Amino acid sequence: MKPLGVGLIGTGYMGKCHALAWNAVRQIFGDVPRPRLVHLAEMNSDLAARRASEFGFERSTANWRDLLADPDVDVISVTTPNQFHAEMATAALQAGKHVWCEKPMAPKLSDAERMLEAQKASGRIAIMGYNYIQNPVVRHIRTLIGEGAIGTVNHVRVEMDEDFMADPQALFYWKSEAASGYGALDDFAVHPLSLLWFLFGHVEAVIADMAKPYGERPLKEGGTRPVENHDITSVLMRMEGGVSAVLMANRSAWGLKGRIAIQIFGSAGSILYDQERMNEFELYQAEGRATEQGYRRILTAPAHSPYDRFIPAPGHGLGFNDLKIIECRELIRAIAGESFSAITFTDGLRIERTVHAMADSFHQRRWVGIGAA
Amino acid sequence: MKPLGVGLIGTGYMGKCHALAWNAVRQIFGDVPRPRLVHLAEMNSDLAARRASEFGFERSTANWRDLLADPDVDVISVTTPNQFHAEMATAALQAGKHVWCEKPMAPKLSDAERMLEAQKASGRIAIMGYNYIQNPVVRHIRTLIGEGAIGTVNHVRVEMDEDFMADPQALFYWKSEAASGYGALDDFAVHPLSLLWFLFGHVEAVIADMAKPYGERPLKEGGTRPVENHDITSVLMRMEGGVSAVLMANRSAWGLKGRIAIQIFGSAGSILYDQERMNEFELYQAEGRATEQGYRRILTAPAHSPYDRFIPAPGHGLGFNDLKIIECRELIRAIAGESFSAITFTDGLRIERTVHAMADSFHQRRWVGIGAA
Amino acid sequence: MKPLGVGLIGTGYMGKCHALAWNAVRQIFGDVPRPRLVHLAEMNSDLAARRASEFGFERSTANWRDLLADPDVDVISVTTPNQFHAEMATAALQAGKHVWCEKPMAPKLSDAERMLEAQKASGRIAIMGYNYIQNPVVRHIRTLIGEGAIGTVNHVRVEMDEDFMADPQALFYWKSEAASGYGALDDFAVHPLSLLWFLFGHVEAVIADMAKPYGERPLKEGGTRPVENHDITSVLMRMEGGVSAVLMANRSAWGLKGRIAIQIFGSAGSILYDQERMNEFELYQAEGRATEQGYRRILTAPAHSPYDRFIPAPGHGLGFNDLKIIECRELIRAIAGESFSAITFTDGLRIERTVHAMADSFHQRRWVGIGAA
Amino acid sequence: MKPLGVGLIGTGYMGKCHALAWNAVRQIFGDVPRPRLVHLAEMNSDLAARRASEFGFERSTANWRDLLADPDVDVISVTTPNQFHAEMATAALQAGKHVWCEKPMAPKLSDAERMLEAQKASGRIAIMGYNYIQNPVVRHIRTLIGEGAIGTVNHVRVEMDEDFMADPQALFYWKSEAASGYGALDDFAVHPLSLLWFLFGHVEAVIADMAKPYGERPLKEGGTRPVENHDITSVLMRMEGGVSAVLMANRSAWGLKGRIAIQIFGSAGSILYDQERMNEFELYQAEGRATEQGYRRILTAPAHSPYDRFIPAPGHGLGFNDLKIIECRELIRAIAGESFSAITFTDGLRIERTVHAMADSFHQRRWVGIGAA
Repeated sequence: MKPLGVGLIGTGYMGKCHALAWNAVRQIFGDVPRPRLVHLAEMNSDLAARRASEFGFERSTANWRDLLADPDVDVISVTTPNQFHAEMATAALQAGKHVWCEKPMAPKLSDAERMLEAQKASGRIAIMGYNYIQNPVVRHIRTLIGEGAIGTVNHVRVEMDEDFMADPQALFYWKSEAASGYGALDDFAVHPLSLLWFLFGHVEAVIADMAKPYGERPLKEGGTRPVENHDITSVLMRMEGGVSAVLMANRSAWGLKGRIAIQIFGSAGSILYDQERMNEFELYQAEGRATEQGYRRILTAPAHSPYDRFIPAPGHGLGFNDLKIIECRELIRAIAGESFSAITFTDGLRIERTVHAMADSFHQRRWVGIGAA
Repeated sequence: MKPLGVGLIGTGYMGKCHALAWNAVRQIFGDVPRPRLVHLAEMNSDLAARRASEFGFERSTANWRDLLADPDVDVISVTTPNQFHAEMATAALQAGKHVWCEKPMAPKLSDAERMLEAQKASGRIAIMGYNYIQNPVVRHIRTLIGEGAIGTVNHVRVEMDEDFMADPQALFYWKSEAASGYGALDDFAVHPLSLLWFLFGHVEAVIADMAKPYGERPLKEGGTRPVENHDITSVLMRMEGGVSAVLMANRSAWGLKGRIAIQIFGSAGSILYDQERMNEFELYQAEGRATEQGYRRILTAPAHSPYDRFIPAPGHGLGFNDLKIIECRELIRAIAGESFSAITFTDGLRIERTVHAMADSFHQRRWVGIGAA
Repeated sequence: MKPLGVGLIGTGYMGKCHALAWNAVRQIFGDVPRPRLVHLAEMNSDLAARRASEFGFERSTANWRDLLADPDVDVISVTTPNQFHAEMATAALQAGKHVWCEKPMAPKLSDAERMLEAQKASGRIAIMGYNYIQNPVVRHIRTLIGEGAIGTVNHVRVEMDEDFMADPQALFYWKSEAASGYGALDDFAVHPLSLLWFLFGHVEAVIADMAKPYGERPLKEGGTRPVENHDITSVLMRMEGGVSAVLMANRSAWGLKGRIAIQIFGSAGSILYDQERMNEFELYQAEGRATEQGYRRILTAPAHSPYDRFIPAPGHGLGFNDLKIIECRELIRAIAGESFSAITFTDGLRIERTVHAMADSFHQRRWVGIGAA
Repeated sequence: MKPLGVGLIGTGYMGKCHALAWNAVRQIFGDVPRPRLVHLAEMNSDLAARRASEFGFERSTANWRDLLADPDVDVISVTTPNQFHAEMATAALQAGKHVWCEKPMAPKLSDAERMLEAQKASGRIAIMGYNYIQNPVVRHIRTLIGEGAIGTVNHVRVEMDEDFMADPQALFYWKSEAASGYGALDDFAVHPLSLLWFLFGHVEAVIADMAKPYGERPLKEGGTRPVENHDITSVLMRMEGGVSAVLMANRSAWGLKGRIAIQIFGSAGSILYDQERMNEFELYQAEGRATEQGYRRILTAPAHSPYDRFIPAPGHGLGFNDLKIIECRELIRAIAGESFSAITFTDGLRIERTVHAMADSFHQRRWVGIGAA
């Protein structure tokens, strides 16, 4: 396989994370050619040039469309704000590039649908950046469920909480505008939905409640402005096969910094996991004497593939950025035509549909089903 | 105050717990007369006599109505199965006795209403056995909320989970019959509802989902029998003042033994608590430097009244049975005409109404409001 | 068996704890006669009378020797400050009473030896109040070790830490006087030593270091006074059979309230336990797949006898005072001539010898062996 | 500053870790030139060539001395087994290269001394690979101590435990040979000693105990061979200024995978940290009301520099390999003549001296002081 030529649009939080992954993926895995970091786009030429130097890209531009025309670019990482994803990903696919697009697809469902259509028409690979499913812990939980380690799953709870919107004195900014989306629901809930999809398949019906912890927020210039979306969302759900589930998301949850906690109950045991302690999970198996039954806290280890590609000793810990390297390896696998594990635009669209159904259920105060497409 | 004469109906799990409390309350608190353990009722004379001897009661009977006629009995503990509460509590009140009745009031709402009417007509004290709200930790959480330690509360989650119904191979028994109630909802959810009431006031609207992890259970004689109620319940709620809340209950949750976990989010912090570790709670207050913010794990200590009545040193731990002793002290306070903190029949009825509204919301698949009475 | 007549000397922290145990032991266990609370001694008549009323004792005195002469008293609880234990326990035994004496035996080794001699001469039962070994968790750990659940034990660490001496601004009081003992060593270390004895047998050789976190402490009247003993002790030890162990005790350990943490390493697994969470322990067994190995957190349950005598449901939790009730049951068993599990004066003396050997090893800066007696 | 030319000797566990760090350091920090990965040495040409390709090095060799002669190489990472460190590091320094050598310096003290002499004579930079001190959590703990956040430190405990030698059925291999060193002491204890040095300065006196959990281990060819060193070490220590400390290391500690746990007690608080959960620590500060005092669990965040260079959001977690990138940045800083924080050969030698003093104290069964050099 010839080295992939990489284009990168956006160099913020996720842009840097993608750059790190492209740069490290061969060192870690050893079995893929080292990608060639070709072309980087940012808002202006200076920033683009500086980031290209820092991240090790050959050339830079203030016009992201330059990447489409660059024959050395095979795949484009789209890491810009959500409202730009549709235009960029669609154009990239139409230009014959593979796409690695950060979640979510797009604020509007119609845009997300257009992205999938572009991917289908292009015949190129397009995956979403849902890195939490790449955690070896999460992968192993899927294996355990598949093996029946906790029997048949019958109930699931998932919570995603951070506190970056928790301060009522923080100034009003674009995240509280209706134009930016529903609030915690699409800003957040897509992550737990990616986990649910990865572990259990699709959501079939939902009813959501949404709440505003603060009705208004202060303005820099004095006075306040009403908050237009909801920082808190709670949803009752039914999964494929009727499994009952609850999803809770709160971006104003003081004290929680990166919680994505999942509780999985089955007929023979249960599993607990929380992203704030991403290198461990807890497993309860109903077997043996009553006097020794309990949750086993299991630390990540080389036996939880591909942890072994990073560290040969157990209990030493992967970091958040390492998950992106694993995702990058899956993308390269996909482009090479091999089997892979990542969220495609097809599955990504289903997640978006679920989010919009949740919003509908809140506004209509009733259960809403999610159609197949 | 003259010593109270105590009658006890039922000597199982909760009956023994009441007996322990009546026996220890003066030793622990020092400021109430030692109750006189007078009369105990059980199903048959032999058992009644044996338990009276063990528990230190003066006399025993196989006819609980004997307690009503006993002039030495001032107060009666009702600890029999739920379906007997209404008849016994009502009769006791009509006989002029005070009543300490285990939760819930009664499977049927009309029976619970009748109990409250009897209490009102009698002018006697009647409280429910909701001992978790007597935990010094829970009491202190209420104090903290009242002081504004976490600002204005805007979101609450509460989970109650045990695994005594988790084994699909366990034989069908009465708890799976429709006649015994809705399942996890009334068997369980009343406990978290007592906490919610104690900490935040009343629930105003609900929508519930209920699920059966196992559609049928084996019979002793072979074959299976369909399960008639639901071991899993999840509820979206709105509290007084519009605070959003989620209640989850699962009595088939493998691995969880006595979880009553509550998460309370406010505008200035948050609080976490789990009954499985009943001697601690976690407090996050948004203040100070970013580098030192985190959840504080606080162990019970003499400063958390009335822990000091049990142990003068911090971190040594109360037990489940100790909570009943505290509840007993509150009951004695109530009977003495002093201010007290416990769940009366009036408040208990509101909890029952909430439970029935939840069941209605599930069957009707819509939000249901809880009227004032 | 006829009911035991109980005498109690001292009504502070431990005195109340003994009174609670004597009062509840029949209710909890059901298979022993209810002890008769006969005679209580305190420093002055008023306090004695008040406590007798509160605790339910028939009569009281300001002269503890009155209990020796009381024919209704069969057994005497000695819960006074340490320096009085020898005189009182010895006199009680000489008067033909059984003795339940709080730990430690006595500040001076010669006094402790005298206590054992008195017990031997009397033919009466004498046990020490080392209640932590009565925790069902600790008992079950012993069972597990005996069964070989973690193979052959090869290393042990035990830490006992509280913070009641941690504040350097707290006034000098008698605990910092040399006359009160070595400091953390005898004030504290006897508790972990009781656990080590219970789980593994005797200590054979030691070398200790002792430290003063604060060289002097303030006086109420102004100025300071040098601290005469050591709040911190650390000891390397060899147990019977050569097992290496480390004991650490710190009574000025800010943040720790009731830690008695033990780590036990064996050839097939390990066990962790901490008294601050006295209703759980952690067990690691080296078996099964590498992907699922981890520490199992096990909550106390009815299967951990005699938890079932207190509560029929798992995970609900015993408290500190409950351990004394279990110890009381063992004492009654001993008096009845049955097999029992508690620390006798014979074993208690060995613990005292170990403490004194530790102090010697510190002063002599060398390893010191503990002779058989 | 011109880009550094990098040589790498050894490509195992630590060799890969160094390669990852050299490759990522510019991307992460942005303010250093991208190092040029020049020359890699391994045992044989094929492996060397393969690793050079994987890790992105320009050329490779089976003769590590080729790196000394390579004018493009400015700095050499030495990541081979311990017995080769002295020869390689010394030669590299003599050839005018800077050196980044994995811990420990060398099994023999005289070799370590020779390494320091070579460094001094060369005028080049030489630092040791003690990456745990680079954890932002550990750095922040040092800051807190320096600020007096827990007052004056008066007691420290540190434990390092893993279980890779815990299986008594595992075949005898070189780690159990006397030639490989003392066992847990030098294999392990150097890591906690690096933390102690970083946080508190030097160790002044020690007394150690060492133990063999298994006297012999099986041979592949049948039969057994006596174990020649000690998997367990426990040490009492006095630090600079007289602070008492305990160090415990066990490489046969079933269940523990990467524990480096430290407890720090001061006159105004305490700090707890464990490398198995490397993204958090616990802080207790004795202030405020008794009812809210407790350990605060603090998650890493951008405010804990240089976490922010990796991730802009709190609570998302660094991994073990990230620590090496931070160390690499410090090394580059040192080479550039800037202030830096890492363990030089001077400090590394003091750590080695301490290890040898511990071994002496065990064999001589007495306290041993560590001289200044």
